Amino acid sequence: MALADELTAAMAAIHARGWCDGTGGNFSCVLQKNPLQLLMAPSGVDKGQVQASELIVVDAAGRVLAGPGKASAETALHLEIVARCGAGAVLHTHSQAATLLSRWALAGPLVPARGQAPEPISDGVVRVEGLEMLKGLEGHSTHATAIEIPVLANDQNLARLSQRAGPLLPDAPFGLLIAGHGLYAWGQSLSQANRHLEILEFLLEQSWRQLLLNALTGRTHPTTPLALG
Amino acid sequence: MALADELTAAMAAIHARGWCDGTGGNFSCVLQKNPLQLLMAPSGVDKGQVQASELIVVDAAGRVLAGPGKASAETALHLEIVARCGAGAVLHTHSQAATLLSRWALAGPLVPARGQAPEPISDGVVRVEGLEMLKGLEGHSTHATAIEIPVLANDQNLARLSQRAGPLLPDAPFGLLIAGHGLYAWGQSLSQANRHLEILEFLLEQSWRQLLLNALTGRTHPTTPLALG
Amino acid sequence: MALADELTAAMAAIHARGWCDGTGGNFSCVLQKNPLQLLMAPSGVDKGQVQASELIVVDAAGRVLAGPGKASAETALHLEIVARCGAGAVLHTHSQAATLLSRWALAGPLVPARGQAPEPISDGVVRVEGLEMLKGLEGHSTHATAIEIPVLANDQNLARLSQRAGPLLPDAPFGLLIAGHGLYAWGQSLSQANRHLEILEFLLEQSWRQLLLNALTGRTHPTTPLALG
Amino acid sequence: MALADELTAAMAAIHARGWCDGTGGNFSCVLQKNPLQLLMAPSGVDKGQVQASELIVVDAAGRVLAGPGKASAETALHLEIVARCGAGAVLHTHSQAATLLSRWALAGPLVPARGQAPEPISDGVVRVEGLEMLKGLEGHSTHATAIEIPVLANDQNLARLSQRAGPLLPDAPFGLLIAGHGLYAWGQSLSQANRHLEILEFLLEQSWRQLLLNALTGRTHPTTPLALG
Repeated sequence: MALADELTAAMAAIHARGWCDGTGGNFSCVLQKNPLQLLMAPSGVDKGQVQASELIVVDAAGRVLAGPGKASAETALHLEIVARCGAGAVLHTHSQAATLLSRWALAGPLVPARGQAPEPISDGVVRVEGLEMLKGLEGHSTHATAIEIPVLANDQNLARLSQRAGPLLPDAPFGLLIAGHGLYAWGQSLSQANRHLEILEFLLEQSWRQLLLNALTGRTHPTTPLALG
Repeated sequence: MALADELTAAMAAIHARGWCDGTGGNFSCVLQKNPLQLLMAPSGVDKGQVQASELIVVDAAGRVLAGPGKASAETALHLEIVARCGAGAVLHTHSQAATLLSRWALAGPLVPARGQAPEPISDGVVRVEGLEMLKGLEGHSTHATAIEIPVLANDQNLARLSQRAGPLLPDAPFGLLIAGHGLYAWGQSLSQANRHLEILEFLLEQSWRQLLLNALTGRTHPTTPLALG
Repeated sequence: MALADELTAAMAAIHARGWCDGTGGNFSCVLQKNPLQLLMAPSGVDKGQVQASELIVVDAAGRVLAGPGKASAETALHLEIVARCGAGAVLHTHSQAATLLSRWALAGPLVPARGQAPEPISDGVVRVEGLEMLKGLEGHSTHATAIEIPVLANDQNLARLSQRAGPLLPDAPFGLLIAGHGLYAWGQSLSQANRHLEILEFLLEQSWRQLLLNALTGRTHPTTPLALG
Repeated sequence: MALADELTAAMAAIHARGWCDGTGGNFSCVLQKNPLQLLMAPSGVDKGQVQASELIVVDAAGRVLAGPGKASAETALHLEIVARCGAGAVLHTHSQAATLLSRWALAGPLVPARGQAPEPISDGVVRVEGLEMLKGLEGHSTHATAIEIPVLANDQNLARLSQRAGPLLPDAPFGLLIAGHGLYAWGQSLSQANRHLEILEFLLEQSWRQLLLNALTGRTHPTTPLALG
C-alpha cells in the first residue's frame, strides 16, 4: 500500500476511535529525508474522511510543496519532532484522556478565574509505571519501568511551543502532551508511531480510571499514582 | 453527493455514536433560502436508518411541502436557529453528556419531589474555557477563550421554547442546550454544523470527566470548572 | 425484509453495542397470534452471529415447533410478556448499566457474605423522571413524567419468576429489570421494541452517570435521583 | 471456515473492542493434540490486522514449526494452560478493566515509591458473585454462585510465571489475571474461549463500575464487593 493510502487509513481508524473529532488533530509521515519532505493532512479537514489526493507535501520550513490545502500551524512541532527524534511519522490526537490528564498534571489551577488571563503555569509530567503496556514503547522490555510524558502549557505560538518542546523530545517516551490540548506520538515508521499512539492513549485512559478508583477507595500509596513533575 | 444523501449519511454516523437513540434527535439542512425550505428527517423515525427518499421538505412556517412524513414539533426551533443565526444546517442530538450536564447546570433541583410539578427553574449556562478544542468553533483562534452554552429549561411548547431561545441564539457558541433533553448545534453548512456538533459533544463529555476528577481529587479552583450563570 | 432477517439484524446491532456478550440475552418476535408462535434465537448461541436459518419457532407452552436449536428457559418470561402486554417483540439484554442499577436498586446488600446464601430480598424499582428521552416510550408526550421500572430479584426458576413478573407487567414502562441480570424491553412490533430498548438503556446509563455526579458534587435533592420502591 | 481464518477473525473483533491495543495480547488455538501443535499470532504484530498467512505453528516446547514470525515469550503460559486445563484455545487480552482491577486486587501498593524496586507482592483474587453473566462460564447454572479469578504479580520470566500459575489453573474460572497486565481466558474450543473472554471482560468492567458506585453512595456491605484473597 502506498504511504498516502496508509496514512489516510490510519487517520480514518483514529477518527473512528474519537481521537480527532471536529477536524482536530494532525498526522504526518516522512516522504523523503534529504531534503526533508513530510506528507500530511491539510489544515481544517475532517481527518476521518480525508482522501489520499487531498494530502499535502511540506518541506523542512513548513512550506507546501504539493497538494491542494494549507499546512496547519502545528506543522512546526511535527518538524521539530522529526528533526530531534528521527521520527518517520508523527500522530497528534485530541482524545478525552489526553486532554483531561494533561490539564490535570499542570500544577496551576485548571481554570483561570473569570476575567483573568490564564496564569503562566510551569510545565509538568504525567508519570506512568509498572504496567505491562509500557513494553509497547520501543526500548522497554519489562513492566518494571516508568515513563514521564512531558506536559507543556498550551501556546498558539507554535514556533515558541516547538522551541520549548525541543530539549524535552530526545528523552520523551515517544510522546508529548500539550495541556488541555492533546497528545503527540511518534515512531520510526507509521506502524511504530501507530503502536506508540495506541499504547500512550491506553496508558492515559488507564491513569484516569486509576485516579478515580484510588480516590474513591481511599487507597494510600507511597507516591501519588500520577506524580507531578 | 446530493444534499439528501449527505444528510442521511450524517444522521447514520451520529446514530452510530449513540447520540440519537430511540428515534431521538432531529436534523435539518437549508435547501433554499428565498422562500426558505428546510430538508429534514420526519418525526418518529430511526435516524440511523432513514433513507434519502424518506426526508421531508418544510417551509418557514413548518408546513410539510414534500415527502412522506410528518414534521417534528421541534421544527420550530430549527427554524428559529436558521432565522436568527443564518444557519445552513441544524443538528439536534440526545447524548449522555448533553442530557446530564444540561440538567446539572440548572440551579434548581434536578428532580422534582414526587407528586409535585417541576419547579419553574431559571435558565443557566455551561461554561467551558481554556481547551484547544474550542478552536473548532468558528471564530475562535486560541484556547485562551471561553464559551457559555445557554441552557434552557425544557418545555413541550416549542413555540414558547423557541421564543425564549431566540434572543440567546446570536451570541450562542453555535450550540444551545435544553435541560435534561439535549444539544442543538448548527453551522453555515452541514459540514460546519457537523464539526461544531463534534466539538461541543467533545467539550461536554470532557466537562463531565473534569467534574468527576476535580471532585474526587479535591482540587480547588478559583472558580468552579462548570460555572453556573 | 422478512421477519427472520429483521430479527437477526436487530440482534447483530444489539451485540455490537455490547448488550448481549458471551451468548447472553435473548430476543423474540410474534410470528402468528392464533395459535401463538414466537420466532426466537435458540439457547446458547452468539447473538451477534446467529443466522436466520438458525432461529427457532416455539408455541405458547415454549415447545420448539421448528428450527435446529433448543429454547432458552427464559422463553417462559417472553411468553408471559406477550400474553400480558400484547407485545409483538421482546428484547432481553445484559448491559453494564442494567446489571449495575438493577442490583443497586434492591434494598438488600449487593453481595452476600461469603458462605451465606443470598438473602431473600424484596423487589424494587428504578425510577426515572424529567428527561426528554422518556417521550420515546409509547404514550408519554412530555418530559414532565416519570417511570418506575420494576426490579425483580433474580431467580433461575423461570416459571416462578414469570409468575412474580406477571402482575407487574401491565403497568411496567415497556421494561422490566431482573437484578444483577439485565433488562427485558418490549413493544407492539420489533421496531417499537427496539425503540423502547434504546430508550431504556439510555435512561439506565444516564441514571448511573447522574448518581456518580450527584454523589460527587454533593448536590442535595428533594428526593434521591433513583428512588427505591 | 478454516481454523486460521476463525482465529484471525476473532483477533480482529477483539482488537476492535480495544482489548489488544498496540500489538498487545496474544491468541492461540490447538491445531493438533498429539504431538501438540498450537496455531498462534506471532510476536509484535498488530492483532487487528494479522492475516491467516502470518500465523505461526509452535510445538509443546514453544519452538516455531511453521510460519514467518517469532513466538512470543508468553507462549509458555499458553502451553501451560493447554496442558493443565485441556484448553483448545487461549485468548490473552490487555483491556482497561483487566489492567485496572488486577492491579487493584493485589494487597501491596499499586505504585512503588520512586527509585525503589517494586515490592514483592503476594498474589490475590478478584471475586465476583451473584451475577447472571456468571452462567456464561461453563459449568455454572445459576447466578447464586461465585468465582475467584486468580491474580498473579507480573513477571517477565515467563517460565517462572507459568510455574506459579500452573497449580492455580485447574480451579480457575477459565480465566487468570496478571496484575497490571491483563487477562488470560480459555475454553475447549475457540468459540467457547471467546464466550468466556466476553463474560470475564464483562464481569471485570461491571466490578469496576460497582466499586465506583458503592464507594460513592456509601453503601455498606457484609463484605467488600471485590474481596481480596
